[in-house]
Amino acid sequence: MTKEIEFYYDIVSPYTYLAYKRIIEIEKTSNIKFIYKPILLGGLHKLSNITAAAFIESKKKYTIHDCQLIAEKFKINFKYNDKFPISSLNIMRGVLTLEENKKKNYIDKFFNAYWCYNIDLSDEKEIIKILNSLQIDYNEYILKVKDQKTKDLLKNLTNEAFKKEVFGAPTFIVNGKIYWGQDRLDFAIDEYNKITQS
Amino acid sequence: MTKEIEFYYDIVSPYTYLAYKRIIEIEKTSNIKFIYKPILLGGLHKLSNITAAAFIESKKKYTIHDCQLIAEKFKINFKYNDKFPISSLNIMRGVLTLEENKKKNYIDKFFNAYWCYNIDLSDEKEIIKILNSLQIDYNEYILKVKDQKTKDLLKNLTNEAFKKEVFGAPTFIVNGKIYWGQDRLDFAIDEYNKITQS
Repeated sequence: MTKEIEFYYDIVSPYTYLAYKRIIEIEKTSNIKFIYKPILLGGLHKLSNITAAAFIESKKKYTIHDCQLIAEKFKINFKYNDKFPISSLNIMRGVLTLEENKKKNYIDKFFNAYWCYNIDLSDEKEIIKILNSLQIDYNEYILKVKDQKTKDLLKNLTNEAFKKEVFGAPTFIVNGKIYWGQDRLDFAIDEYNKITQS
Repeated sequence: MTKEIEFYYDIVSPYTYLAYKRIIEIEKTSNIKFIYKPILLGGLHKLSNITAAAFIESKKKYTIHDCQLIAEKFKINFKYNDKFPISSLNIMRGVLTLEENKKKNYIDKFFNAYWCYNIDLSDEKEIIKILNSLQIDYNEYILKVKDQKTKDLLKNLTNEAFKKEVFGAPTFIVNGKIYWGQDRLDFAIDEYNKITQS
């Protein structure tokens, strides 16, 4: 039995950002082991025959208010992005081009840029600014992002998630059990504590 | 300003049952005023262009596990119905044929039959049994259920909910604010307390 919490994420998802902000606090103050699993949420929704809330008018409008409610509850800086949704394809492929020790900062910068600073991540200039701040060379990066191997890697990770019956983000898997949505983070942690204390 | 919590419900929805079971406890122990608003969830989903979780394989499977999790948390008797989903059209029209003082018992019996006792509510015989236990005459009932006025009434209530930007069940509206899902009941109550204490 693997004693960890798998955390399926895509930068484009506001609820995943909210879960992420809670997770980084939990990581600071506990020994809980989160395994970050990048996926392409749009691809996963397609495989699952799901229309995302972002494309259903009433749900999207509700989500704006609801995310703010959750952000207030957990005292998370949050600003609904004016350019939501965008394609996160290159950003998520980008994660897979980096050395392990560079991934966390990259994820952090992009999550914050999109869901805290309202930055338009469909604008290449903004991507370059963020990469510069991470000391990542854009030209090298984009070559790797467009490499077929990188494309296949993200596709495979997304397919793998689908096969595990993940259908949205954030999703947590602990002890073979699936927990969907930031609302279920506490349940995932309860399950984690159960298996690590037994 | 109306100081109440509107509770949009359809017997067919498992999360609405879970919210309902919490609400009846809250009603017993507080002065919080819930206004029960019957809708046809299937009709509302259609208006909203939403495919219900019940019709998305991975989501439906997840929901079974997730509802059990919530039921355990709140110590609610719950059994996922083997015949889910069914059409709740006649049952929800039925609510509208009753005198006010008979509605609560009707709702209670049908919620429990479907989500606690695993009863097949697409079977007319089961409906008759429940109506008998409520001392409602089936023949009179079904005449009223099939009356165009009753049909229009449920349709209008569902359209009204849609116009208020309700898109799922359970939904709570307090102070003009929408809260969707049993996960948001506490937030709805917080808002209620805020306006009643001010």
